[in-house]
Amino acid sequence: MRTVDLIQRKRDGEELAVEEIRHLIEGYSGGGIPDYQISAFLMAVFHSGMTDREVSALTDAMIASGATVDLSDIPGPKVDKHSTGGVGDKTSLIAAPIAAAAGVIVPMISGRALGHTGGTLDKLESIPGFRTNLTIEEFKAQLRETGLAFVGQTPEITPADGKLYSLRDSTATVESIPLIASSIMAKKIAIGLDAVVLDVKVGSGAFMKRQVEARRLAQMMVGIGRRLDKRVQALITDMNQPLGFAVGNALEVMEVSQTLQNAGPVDLTRLSLELASRMIFVAKLTKTLDEARELAQSKLLDGSGYRKLKQVIAAQGGNPAVLDQFELLPNATGAREITSPRGGYISAIDAELIGKASSMIGAGRDTKDDAIDHAVGVILEAKVGQRMDSGSILCRIYYTNDAQVEEAAEMVEDAFRISQTPPEERELILEVAS
Amino acid sequence: MRTVDLIQRKRDGEELAVEEIRHLIEGYSGGGIPDYQISAFLMAVFHSGMTDREVSALTDAMIASGATVDLSDIPGPKVDKHSTGGVGDKTSLIAAPIAAAAGVIVPMISGRALGHTGGTLDKLESIPGFRTNLTIEEFKAQLRETGLAFVGQTPEITPADGKLYSLRDSTATVESIPLIASSIMAKKIAIGLDAVVLDVKVGSGAFMKRQVEARRLAQMMVGIGRRLDKRVQALITDMNQPLGFAVGNALEVMEVSQTLQNAGPVDLTRLSLELASRMIFVAKLTKTLDEARELAQSKLLDGSGYRKLKQVIAAQGGNPAVLDQFELLPNATGAREITSPRGGYISAIDAELIGKASSMIGAGRDTKDDAIDHAVGVILEAKVGQRMDSGSILCRIYYTNDAQVEEAAEMVEDAFRISQTPPEERELILEVAS
Repeated sequence: MRTVDLIQRKRDGEELAVEEIRHLIEGYSGGGIPDYQISAFLMAVFHSGMTDREVSALTDAMIASGATVDLSDIPGPKVDKHSTGGVGDKTSLIAAPIAAAAGVIVPMISGRALGHTGGTLDKLESIPGFRTNLTIEEFKAQLRETGLAFVGQTPEITPADGKLYSLRDSTATVESIPLIASSIMAKKIAIGLDAVVLDVKVGSGAFMKRQVEARRLAQMMVGIGRRLDKRVQALITDMNQPLGFAVGNALEVMEVSQTLQNAGPVDLTRLSLELASRMIFVAKLTKTLDEARELAQSKLLDGSGYRKLKQVIAAQGGNPAVLDQFELLPNATGAREITSPRGGYISAIDAELIGKASSMIGAGRDTKDDAIDHAVGVILEAKVGQRMDSGSILCRIYYTNDAQVEEAAEMVEDAFRISQTPPEERELILEVAS
Repeated sequence: MRTVDLIQRKRDGEELAVEEIRHLIEGYSGGGIPDYQISAFLMAVFHSGMTDREVSALTDAMIASGATVDLSDIPGPKVDKHSTGGVGDKTSLIAAPIAAAAGVIVPMISGRALGHTGGTLDKLESIPGFRTNLTIEEFKAQLRETGLAFVGQTPEITPADGKLYSLRDSTATVESIPLIASSIMAKKIAIGLDAVVLDVKVGSGAFMKRQVEARRLAQMMVGIGRRLDKRVQALITDMNQPLGFAVGNALEVMEVSQTLQNAGPVDLTRLSLELASRMIFVAKLTKTLDEARELAQSKLLDGSGYRKLKQVIAAQGGNPAVLDQFELLPNATGAREITSPRGGYISAIDAELIGKASSMIGAGRDTKDDAIDHAVGVILEAKVGQRMDSGSILCRIYYTNDAQVEEAAEMVEDAFRISQTPPEERELILEVAS
């Protein structure tokens, strides 16, 4: 089996056999196949796509490249929630505690901010003392005790995925649907989950700009789950404006706290509850989805989701008081208002530009080794559909260093579209694939 | 300028600026851009193509990556002939001596056999003593004295092309029209030519399988020449059966000798004369193409082309007597006849299969470091359109080692299609781009 022949066949749109995909991934993991052949293969996949059979083989090969976690000795259904990445998307910090409070075991493997999108680990690390680098033993102990634990990707799990991701990042092959689908699903399956709820973002602030692509990704992940006997549901949700009002790590933790006290933004509350409901449902804790929705709602309203997050923060070394006393979180030293240049309706808020501006002043990172400023970010004062007067405040930029504030402010200004007629209402949850 | 952004834009079908292409090639030559980014870029080019402006920029950047040869101190028009590679294609060894005999200065930079296609250097090296590794000084001295010299690619000329070619070879990105066009043209221009005649092969035995691709390649090379003020004419010629009867290094030298004595195959004689005529015409030695054709014809008929090749062989250390006494060339020790399984007309001879079979028994190489057996090959006894009886001889395989003869014989048998009706006649010279 010559690697160059496999590249050529994928280049020409042919389907590779299971053992051929395994050859590529094993060879790359083991060092026998060089970077430059795999990057050409990845670009060929970008252009030619992959069949369901190929993407399942790729997922399997990535799982086989490393260790897997056995959670079978922890009683209860293990369900994770995963988002493809958005701006202001802090639903994991809301949906997971609610689901855990309802009895789901939630082993949350989260990511870090990259490019214009945020990362759950970075948000949690804005809480002083919070540790995300649990050992597998600590992780399992905490799941047994609290039903919820947040950790990062460990290098022992799907190491081929980590190696491939770095290569994709430097060769413009990140945005390939089969590569995204297999990367997500391999990590979920290797960690020993029974079911997954996926939040596939679509719109200006997401990797997927078009709904047809998001649908293909959602269906592909559901299909991988089905072939590997895991229950998978995927929501396709709108990311044509940031979710909630807050963008930036500590700022988002504050909004999480408000939302878990049922005083958060409508869109964020609604999506977090739906995700929690789906987690409860695929965990088979209720017979119907409607029952799951009632259960999730009650766990929000009675404050048990809120208490669950405090319990988890304490378990992972953080100070749970931050959820009540925001001054215990890192706070920005400067603020700058962005005002509306004229009267009219907000017809769009480009989430990618808001994310980029926020990242530029320190909330995110361009490369994996950049440091993060947990205090900074953007807080929207208005959302799409709202009527603004000329000069009224659209949002505030919170910063600690004014070096790039000017540039970030221009970017944020550009993000807002003001029009004379009210925009059509958009659905937040567009589709469900299951 | 971030390399990954350039890859992404090419991936998405955008046009890169001249300085962006230069950045990629300079960075790769200089070692600042790694293999794995360039291979992803090459695969993106394979899928997205390049505009004329981009391919000219790529050609320029490859020329600028190394030394250039100044032939301006040699009087006379410098014209090369280049084929994109075929099976049994020994026209360089016929057209170049005829053109040189007519007064054209022919600095022939030739290649080696690779895959199923032969290489002029390997054919020449079947002549005992023949040296192809001339220094630039020796090369120029011989051009001054005889008007014709054959050398290989030197590493000083367009080193970026050499580096890119190796990478393309191992990443399934060889068959990209802009990459082929720029690779050929960069070498021609760097060597100081005034004009080039190109023979773009199309058909089962060529890299280009379809005429529309061959036309695009021909037009692209003509366009590069025009923008760089070089006269370029490109013939598109049929490679749906081997050219002439002989395939294999010493066997082809024998056929060259016969053809230069006007006793060669009709197709080979015709194409060689047309190529020589075009070389004479773009060298501006005649006013019209018809005058050039008459001149080429006369140089064949009066034996001056034949004498010119002998002179060149002697100048490069070989024994010119090989052209009269074939026993001085390496000779195979075994022969095997392939006979027609039934009566009928030969409707096709798959040139790629003949080339592969010939390569398999030692006439070619799979990788650049393989050794070649100059004696072996295939001699056709019949060509497309000929009526065969059952059991009559289609061709003979000449070998020195019978290890793979069985497999080669099956391949050769598969190459012949026998049908009950005579095939439609095919044109040898399909189109001219200029």
